[in-house]
Amino acid sequence: MVVVNSSRNVEPRIYHDGKKVLHVEKRVLVGPHNGAPNFSMRKFTVGKGGCSPYHTHPWEHEVYVLSGQGEVRFAGGSQPVAPGDFALVPPNDEHQFVNTGDGVFEFLCMVPLKGEDG
Amino acid sequence: MVVVNSSRNVEPRIYHDGKKVLHVEKRVLVGPHNGAPNFSMRKFTVGKGGCSPYHTHPWEHEVYVLSGQGEVRFAGGSQPVAPGDFALVPPNDEHQFVNTGDGVFEFLCMVPLKGEDG
Repeated sequence: MVVVNSSRNVEPRIYHDGKKVLHVEKRVLVGPHNGAPNFSMRKFTVGKGGCSPYHTHPWEHEVYVLSGQGEVRFAGGSQPVAPGDFALVPPNDEHQFVNTGDGVFEFLCMVPLKGEDG
Repeated sequence: MVVVNSSRNVEPRIYHDGKKVLHVEKRVLVGPHNGAPNFSMRKFTVGKGGCSPYHTHPWEHEVYVLSGQGEVRFAGGSQPVAPGDFALVPPNDEHQFVNTGDGVFEFLCMVPLKGEDG
């Protein structure tokens, strides 16, 4: 059955890195909970001054920037991103998404199901 | 290696249904051509009066609406969609995406690699 919904209806999970608040909200739009067979679609909203952790894992990210100004940091460099830009982070590549603007920075991030922690 | 690019730099493919122009541009942002391991991310731009074919196939779609006004048609119904809405079309479910507005209707559509025809 086709599932249609607004991302505004999806409750966010707030990300922390130990005691530090990262100003990141994660919404799993499509995932195991509503029947995704192979990969998940998540929406991240990063507040001013916020970022995802600089990390690596054995699955890819496919990212599309929806709003705001940000930067992708990776081993050996970084690149600014704006709405309409996209990124492929291959498995095991170090990466981080950073809000470099004054407003929120929003992006979609798709991962195979093995990369979805809920 | 991390791939970052603008979707504006990706050349579109124009969709036809026999002799009928569907007013649909497809851009494969992430796919086999730049190293996607499991699934592709495509951006569709549907002009005024345009639509995708009403069809079915044995793989899922995960869709996120970027701009414009549209409608998802499926067996037994239809539902309007606006920016920020998302849809999961399970494998083998009939579906169609229709531009119901006066401007362009744009959405991302992710599929497993077996559903990517190039």
